[in-house]
Amino acid sequence: MVRWAPGARERLHAAALEAFAERGFEAVPVAEIAAAAGLTERTFFRYFTDKREVLFHGQESLQEAFVEGIAAAPAGATPFEVIRGALEHAAESWFPAERRRFSRARGVVIAAEPGLRERELLKMRALAAAISEALRARGTPEPQATLAAETCVTVFHVSFEQWIAEGEERSLAEIQHAMFDELETLSRS
Amino acid sequence: MVRWAPGARERLHAAALEAFAERGFEAVPVAEIAAAAGLTERTFFRYFTDKREVLFHGQESLQEAFVEGIAAAPAGATPFEVIRGALEHAAESWFPAERRRFSRARGVVIAAEPGLRERELLKMRALAAAISEALRARGTPEPQATLAAETCVTVFHVSFEQWIAEGEERSLAEIQHAMFDELETLSRS
Repeated sequence: MVRWAPGARERLHAAALEAFAERGFEAVPVAEIAAAAGLTERTFFRYFTDKREVLFHGQESLQEAFVEGIAAAPAGATPFEVIRGALEHAAESWFPAERRRFSRARGVVIAAEPGLRERELLKMRALAAAISEALRARGTPEPQATLAAETCVTVFHVSFEQWIAEGEERSLAEIQHAMFDELETLSRS
Repeated sequence: MVRWAPGARERLHAAALEAFAERGFEAVPVAEIAAAAGLTERTFFRYFTDKREVLFHGQESLQEAFVEGIAAAPAGATPFEVIRGALEHAAESWFPAERRRFSRARGVVIAAEPGLRERELLKMRALAAAISEALRARGTPEPQATLAAETCVTVFHVSFEQWIAEGEERSLAEIQHAMFDELETLSRS
């Protein structure tokens, strides 16, 4: 048996997303994903604990990208300047143009399953908690830290949905900047 | 058997919250709640489909309070003026001072159980969806409708947590206004 397969994780990831998007998450067994990637089921489980993991791995790294971005902001930055910077850092390090078609397929799969939508929701809640903690760590008091963190997750989530929309060509960072500008317009009452 | 008990719903609600807050949601059987309210288990199930329902009934009415508030806003109002008004309407019609101690007990019960926290989270998501729909219905385009709806739910949720915090004495409407002011400060970069 092949114990090390070059690019195995990427091949499993691509094969799984394609099969899920075509036939639905529940309908596709792990054995089929492994076969489509030219690998065994055992190899699949060396990379992913289960099928869901294909869709949700890398969650901690995404949180870290936000936390790093927040820590890297200049000392005098306002909370909104800090989160604008963190959003840009996360978009550039995690969602380059070549990832868009995978994110798009993933979005279709998640939208189709209530259980996956709930997990995605919990992921966004965990992200908001990590961001508000990082803001408090740099001295932002409450309730500003929570309000800024929630705003950050809203802008990220709404922008991400737009980024994976059919026909959208702007980068995630560009969309996020536009969303932030929209948000500032809303508050000018 | 008593088929109609005056104030039965309120007595069951109060007895359930007290027992849940003291001993935890899972540990309290329906029979005990009914007995504490001087009623039968059968009467409990005439008012609530299950134990969770005690904590989550009235969800649609809360959504309606927001939707009504949005519909009642003057035609020329900005999206943030509209949601400020809706928040005030919801706070005044749904969370008068005398409800605070029930909401406080409920908050303690929910915070202690992951399953209840998830349900509360889904309730907030449903609220955000109802608000953005109401905004679109009055002509607010996307992405402004979603951004304003998410901001509305953030302000509501963060303010509500503050309203039920030990020692807090301001009304929910006052806290929401203060949160909105904080939010506008954050965006002045």
